[in-house]
Amino acid sequence: MLDDSLSRPADEPLVPPKQMAAWRAFLTAHARITDRLARELRDREELPLTWYDVLVQLSAAPDHRLRMQELAARVVLSKSGLTRLIDRMEQAGYVDRFPCTDDRRGTFAQMTETGYATIKRTAPTHLAGIREHFADVIDDAEAEVVAAALTRVLAHLGDEPV
Amino acid sequence: MLDDSLSRPADEPLVPPKQMAAWRAFLTAHARITDRLARELRDREELPLTWYDVLVQLSAAPDHRLRMQELAARVVLSKSGLTRLIDRMEQAGYVDRFPCTDDRRGTFAQMTETGYATIKRTAPTHLAGIREHFADVIDDAEAEVVAAALTRVLAHLGDEPV
Repeated sequence: MLDDSLSRPADEPLVPPKQMAAWRAFLTAHARITDRLARELRDREELPLTWYDVLVQLSAAPDHRLRMQELAARVVLSKSGLTRLIDRMEQAGYVDRFPCTDDRRGTFAQMTETGYATIKRTAPTHLAGIREHFADVIDDAEAEVVAAALTRVLAHLGDEPV
Repeated sequence: MLDDSLSRPADEPLVPPKQMAAWRAFLTAHARITDRLARELRDREELPLTWYDVLVQLSAAPDHRLRMQELAARVVLSKSGLTRLIDRMEQAGYVDRFPCTDDRRGTFAQMTETGYATIKRTAPTHLAGIREHFADVIDDAEAEVVAAALTRVLAHLGDEPV
């Protein structure tokens, strides 16, 4: 009860200024760069970035399939609308869904051959965008600091590693 | 979004490894931390993070109002569903909409007193989350590098500064 830090002066910001500047840059850069990458992927490949995100997560999984719950944990865009998104991707032939045999409540999403062909065709456009808009602008030392700091943020959240 | 193994020679990465690690940490940390902050704001204040984002942008604008086009450029979440989001926020009494007098096609969104009271009430919860999950985990030197690198990314995109 003698801890001075419990009585924070009203003029002391709750988030320190350097960290607040980092947070604002983090949020704004994410919004702008994903907006740009989405526009480029749509204009050049006619593929929504949210679909690309799902296909990448499935392409990295064994047998190109994941439980819906696991897929929801791995996608980095549009978590909230994932079920409807998978509905549309299934109708378009990119993904199949089927029940888990060992879990009555579970459902798998699996990438189709069309889905795999699509991710192979469109990846160069997306990766060129990541290079142009992000990688070419950040030197090696900065990249190491960004990776280390944000990986520590993830570990501190107690979520899965990158 | 995260896979660099598709459609390239194995010995020539399209995105260099340090920058790819930074990109992955950037995307994943953003997804996880906004997910956590959204859950805390919903559980403790019954407010969606997307609503908070809109209210923050309006609270920083002159007369607490912005043209819809300008608001869409400033929000850092849910750009794609902004019109429907503002519909719901108007019904709930947080925002008013009215036509621009000097531009027949334009519409302003303006924060109501209820909206302002809400952002004042909920900001401490949100800022405590930013502090706990982000600011307390990143030291000053890292914060400066993250801010500088991501501000350069923004400038290179040709978009507005933070």
